[in-house]
Amino acid sequence: MSTTEPIEPTATHGPVHVVGTGLLGTSVAMALTARHVPVTLTDVSPSALALARDLGAGTVAQPEDDEPALVVIAAPPDVTAELVAAQLRAHPGAVVTDVASVKQIILTELQQIAAQDEQVDLSRYVGSHPMAGRERSGAGAATADLFIGRPWVIAAHGASTSAAVLAIRSLALDLGASVATLTAAEHDAAVALISHLPQLMASLTAAQLAGAPDHALALAGQGLRDVTRIAASDARLWSAILSGNGPAVTQVLHQVRAGLDDLITAMDAAAQEGPLAPGAVAGISALIGAGNDGVARVPGKHGGAGNRYTEVGVLVPDSPGELGRLFSEIGEIGVNIEDFQMEHSPKQKVGMAIVSVMPQTATKLQEALAERGWRVVAP
Amino acid sequence: MSTTEPIEPTATHGPVHVVGTGLLGTSVAMALTARHVPVTLTDVSPSALALARDLGAGTVAQPEDDEPALVVIAAPPDVTAELVAAQLRAHPGAVVTDVASVKQIILTELQQIAAQDEQVDLSRYVGSHPMAGRERSGAGAATADLFIGRPWVIAAHGASTSAAVLAIRSLALDLGASVATLTAAEHDAAVALISHLPQLMASLTAAQLAGAPDHALALAGQGLRDVTRIAASDARLWSAILSGNGPAVTQVLHQVRAGLDDLITAMDAAAQEGPLAPGAVAGISALIGAGNDGVARVPGKHGGAGNRYTEVGVLVPDSPGELGRLFSEIGEIGVNIEDFQMEHSPKQKVGMAIVSVMPQTATKLQEALAERGWRVVAP
Repeated sequence: MSTTEPIEPTATHGPVHVVGTGLLGTSVAMALTARHVPVTLTDVSPSALALARDLGAGTVAQPEDDEPALVVIAAPPDVTAELVAAQLRAHPGAVVTDVASVKQIILTELQQIAAQDEQVDLSRYVGSHPMAGRERSGAGAATADLFIGRPWVIAAHGASTSAAVLAIRSLALDLGASVATLTAAEHDAAVALISHLPQLMASLTAAQLAGAPDHALALAGQGLRDVTRIAASDARLWSAILSGNGPAVTQVLHQVRAGLDDLITAMDAAAQEGPLAPGAVAGISALIGAGNDGVARVPGKHGGAGNRYTEVGVLVPDSPGELGRLFSEIGEIGVNIEDFQMEHSPKQKVGMAIVSVMPQTATKLQEALAERGWRVVAP
Repeated sequence: MSTTEPIEPTATHGPVHVVGTGLLGTSVAMALTARHVPVTLTDVSPSALALARDLGAGTVAQPEDDEPALVVIAAPPDVTAELVAAQLRAHPGAVVTDVASVKQIILTELQQIAAQDEQVDLSRYVGSHPMAGRERSGAGAATADLFIGRPWVIAAHGASTSAAVLAIRSLALDLGASVATLTAAEHDAAVALISHLPQLMASLTAAQLAGAPDHALALAGQGLRDVTRIAASDARLWSAILSGNGPAVTQVLHQVRAGLDDLITAMDAAAQEGPLAPGAVAGISALIGAGNDGVARVPGKHGGAGNRYTEVGVLVPDSPGELGRLFSEIGEIGVNIEDFQMEHSPKQKVGMAIVSVMPQTATKLQEALAERGWRVVAP
């Protein structure tokens, strides 16, 4: 993990032309430049372009540059198709990809353009989506490591050549991503469910808190914090993403409304006729049970099933070095930490460290920590 | 934080009688026993009672016991009022509280009982709610430390004497909790918003995943994991809690449905007329913006405002001791860790440690870690 480790040879040779120097475009450019692939940059904003250049992402594109072998469009979804078409026209030898987070709407728009303009040769276009979104945006948040270990969806279409697909696949692998190959429609339905739906549910939950009394918020615990964390996301970016995935998101939202309506029916019965009203408990229980089934399918660390570790809770005073001392002592005890989170209590100068370990090591760890004077609690 | 630290004198002298030896009742009993307060136990289940006794929570109640000064009812919400009434009758000198997670329905039921039975003297009853719920239940999950730093709501009513309120307040403080004083209705509205709503939204989100294709779940990231984590909660327990808080939960759910309907209107427009349809972007943006406002009010660590720390991301190889080494080195660098979480990527043997520090120390930490060979990335 040293910053001085040798750079592995890349399958991508370039030159690569990056259109759009926001978070994703600048990160792609930085990662390629770090691997000695020549990169040229352009952006509609001269200041964004200068920032990316100054961060070492590449050189500002000039008319006399060599023809690019690969063009990466990293622009908002609503302008991506036009930019892809322009680059296919401008560079007849280049493979062109985009990194927008919706795929079908862009492909459909490109097919309409290509039907009118034979210079827009879609055999050289392959859509893609590196799933490395962040709450912050812009070149200033970019990093060459952004894609390491993240999924990178390749959404090839019927007209893509295998050479074009291979070029984008190589780019993703060169940048350390895990490649997943889906159709544009499969991609859009998948992200509607695993990315756009959680965003909207977090926002819907958090939106209820805007007018809540202070005494209610003072009781907030880790559950509320977890459910609402991503509600802090950028409204402008998400509006573009969501409106560009209308059909897939709408389908999921109608399913959620059906589930919510069933729940409201059950809760209305409980509210009006009391907690033992016919259908109340059964209706609520059915939803919580369906949630149990769904969450069990969410992959945990390294793609494995969730909940395969045992959690050990340790109370940690909020003073410098205490968390470090805990980790050092767990290392001395010889138990590997599989996962870790801190849970904090309002107004209390103590936190609970929740250490996830392999089940067969949990008892050993609990006993050894207690012997060393740690307050071991149920997490 | 040593287990052998001296026990501070308690304001609660007992004897305390605990009715119900599940997670909360056994934890209350253990905490009092650890503080040398005499505790007697009872439960409808002989095996649950024996387990609590064997865990050292107290002694099994006998007819010849001294009269309790305080009775704690720790039973499911639907049987709590009857148990409170029975204990008020049985122990005319005792203050009685319950720890159920809904308060108005129990108070209303008790007032109905008291109107028929003068032995049920509600001046000695004070409802309460220690907010120390966990995903696991039962005496086996109990711990004397369960309440440390957690909010404990005291829901006094008009007829409670100040002596009775003081007794419950002392109990909560003796057990290390932070006391919040609310009416039963304020409590129920608050937990509907900050506890019951997130539970239901997590379950509604997770329920959509039950039938999702594997290729969609393989793209899941930290956002989905956070939003759905508490969907793993116990269906039976939550059905009782939610059905007991029908009016308050229903009110919040109707607000959520209104927000969802507005969102569906906007998304339907985007789906049918394209991403630039009138109202589409504005409707989506309004929701995300309202979510931004709401999440900004969620308290972070130690009751402070959220997001007051700067996050530093560090890539950590998944091998024994690496996380411990990171923490040791952060300690050597002299920066205090305010919060910490791990983010994992499927199929990749590397995780991202997200270390939250005071803003003025972030740059120092990033530079010092990079010098030591860590791969510092944007979190």
